[in-house]
Amino acid sequence: MNQAIQTNQLNPYAIQLCALGRWIVQRQWLPFGSGLFSVRTAEHSALFTSTDKDKGELSPADLVPYHWTSHDQTDTATAVHQFLYQINPHHKVVLQTHSMQATVFSCLIKADQHLFVGYQLQNLVAISESQRNCCPLAILDPQNAELTLQELHQRFERETLPHAFLIRGHGLYVWGDSIDSAKRHLETWQFLIGCELERIKASCHFNS
Amino acid sequence: MNQAIQTNQLNPYAIQLCALGRWIVQRQWLPFGSGLFSVRTAEHSALFTSTDKDKGELSPADLVPYHWTSHDQTDTATAVHQFLYQINPHHKVVLQTHSMQATVFSCLIKADQHLFVGYQLQNLVAISESQRNCCPLAILDPQNAELTLQELHQRFERETLPHAFLIRGHGLYVWGDSIDSAKRHLETWQFLIGCELERIKASCHFNS
Amino acid sequence: MNQAIQTNQLNPYAIQLCALGRWIVQRQWLPFGSGLFSVRTAEHSALFTSTDKDKGELSPADLVPYHWTSHDQTDTATAVHQFLYQINPHHKVVLQTHSMQATVFSCLIKADQHLFVGYQLQNLVAISESQRNCCPLAILDPQNAELTLQELHQRFERETLPHAFLIRGHGLYVWGDSIDSAKRHLETWQFLIGCELERIKASCHFNS
Amino acid sequence: MNQAIQTNQLNPYAIQLCALGRWIVQRQWLPFGSGLFSVRTAEHSALFTSTDKDKGELSPADLVPYHWTSHDQTDTATAVHQFLYQINPHHKVVLQTHSMQATVFSCLIKADQHLFVGYQLQNLVAISESQRNCCPLAILDPQNAELTLQELHQRFERETLPHAFLIRGHGLYVWGDSIDSAKRHLETWQFLIGCELERIKASCHFNS
Repeated sequence: MNQAIQTNQLNPYAIQLCALGRWIVQRQWLPFGSGLFSVRTAEHSALFTSTDKDKGELSPADLVPYHWTSHDQTDTATAVHQFLYQINPHHKVVLQTHSMQATVFSCLIKADQHLFVGYQLQNLVAISESQRNCCPLAILDPQNAELTLQELHQRFERETLPHAFLIRGHGLYVWGDSIDSAKRHLETWQFLIGCELERIKASCHFNS
Repeated sequence: MNQAIQTNQLNPYAIQLCALGRWIVQRQWLPFGSGLFSVRTAEHSALFTSTDKDKGELSPADLVPYHWTSHDQTDTATAVHQFLYQINPHHKVVLQTHSMQATVFSCLIKADQHLFVGYQLQNLVAISESQRNCCPLAILDPQNAELTLQELHQRFERETLPHAFLIRGHGLYVWGDSIDSAKRHLETWQFLIGCELERIKASCHFNS
Repeated sequence: MNQAIQTNQLNPYAIQLCALGRWIVQRQWLPFGSGLFSVRTAEHSALFTSTDKDKGELSPADLVPYHWTSHDQTDTATAVHQFLYQINPHHKVVLQTHSMQATVFSCLIKADQHLFVGYQLQNLVAISESQRNCCPLAILDPQNAELTLQELHQRFERETLPHAFLIRGHGLYVWGDSIDSAKRHLETWQFLIGCELERIKASCHFNS
Repeated sequence: MNQAIQTNQLNPYAIQLCALGRWIVQRQWLPFGSGLFSVRTAEHSALFTSTDKDKGELSPADLVPYHWTSHDQTDTATAVHQFLYQINPHHKVVLQTHSMQATVFSCLIKADQHLFVGYQLQNLVAISESQRNCCPLAILDPQNAELTLQELHQRFERETLPHAFLIRGHGLYVWGDSIDSAKRHLETWQFLIGCELERIKASCHFNS
């Protein structure tokens, strides 16, 4: 057993991340082999899930240590995780998932964000008082890693994102300062997105 | 172990309420940390769930005793529970849940109530003979505790509500004279609301 | 232990019916306390579920023996079961269920039947060669027991029903010559009804 | 125990196929008794599921050995399996399933194929670079075995199909070079089809 694997197994976050993977797969928010999870281990490093492992069957030894000082990332998903760790030292966990609802919602909304209004549960993801009333979910178009990070920078300059954003057709990213908060943000956003999608489907009845 | 916890653990309703919490979370009618349950313990007191506990993992020791003679409530959900206990001594259990269907339905219907007609299962929640044929579900707009209670008073003066009402975007409230009856009312209203939502989504086909 | 209970427990169909109840409740095709199941025990008698038992927790001792030679039925659901046993000696099991899809479908379709065309699985419920191509599902309006039986008589005179019919807002009735065949007919009709409901919801896109 | 049964039980693919059956039935992609699975055993032979067995309860002894050199197939589903094994020696597993989404989708789309665009998960089923951007799912009309194979030949001459096609109202066929890859293709196509169906249902809101 090598050093990295030993370290992972002593990291309580790594064990919790594997348990969270099973919870997410059970809800069918992660079709076969998709998605990317990570958990911060130090200022410039994190443990990442490997792409070819079913996230419903993760063990800590399956997580891969990664240091971002050494190299530029060309894979968009990995680059986004790294960006989210670098923009705020309190970001400890990042999750990319592929639920059907989030995917459909991101393809359906043509604007570059969608405003959520009137849901009590917005409170659980809002960063500011104004987001409690009107909570924006950013939707980016899929691009290469460099352009995606440029656009994320611009979005964060305007306003801190409420713990989540979508890449159109490429999944939902959520983050938090602990496994529990990342899970809460994921569950809340899945609820809000699911509600909006149902509302849109039902509202054609009232339009016609 | 203090007095309160001992009392809870001897209250068979407290144990049943925790089991009901697991049943409700399993159906995904309670996203992370949301909702409020209570069970009456005496004329002026009840046990409440605490806001930060996952209702799928409740134990009787997690329930908080509450006496409403001593103070005014500023939290709307707690005030609504108290109001329902005070309006009728037979109300023994109150549940606030946040299912996706109830939330979407409450945001979709702009009127202050919706009439359910033609469902055999209306029988399970109707208070009167006329509600068996036409069962109204009240929908309130979210407001502060005082205005919400004023409006509830006015609604109950017109007609006894059929064991449930909605606050738009803020969940479904149901109650009963036992854990079992509250559970039956919750399941029946989830069924009726779910049916109406599907009917609305499908009926645009016949309108266009 | 009385005679009736002993007899039930020796009836292998009674045990299978209880197992089927758990399977149906698990699929959420039976909201709280609803539905009625029965299994034939002789030419003029059957075992019925009692109305106040959760069908997910049935044991053979919960089944109630019933002989229809002695009295007229005023409860519509019981009268329908009796009618189905009397019209054909091969009918051994009758199930009334309340799935959301069947309920919505029965309220949505205003005609007195709906024709299913183009589904391979129609083969599993068709009575005749023509029903394999075009399978009619009868939809009756809710009425008292006497009028319901009159209408059922008329429907069966025109054509043998494909192991099922709907009462609008009052559930789906299916039957078979064994527990297994009744289960197959239930699952197949749930599939066909679910498909049509989805097709209707999606087809407004193509109409508009 | 006869020779065939012994051979099946020594075939590790046969055991995996039975486990996959349970996984598929759990997702309700196989209503009662429907569907056909097979796994290649040699150049001209495979093990097939028998039509009357519940695929959620398969054991290796339930699989039937089949050699296609000896006879012409008149059953369309079996003929399609045989065709897929003959067209490419790397095809090791073929699955026909009947999910509600795939069935509805195949009935809804009137064209002879549907193009999937903008989903990251297209990568998991694409055969060529161009399919990563625009992935066609062929939809055949139900016909007899001979005409179905003729049409499949023509489709494969134009372009290698991305591990799947639909027969309208008659299910989804997927295949792979191992149990794992067939499962991945099934799960991915279920996801893509489900997304498109939801997108279509929601988009009438934007059209009207």
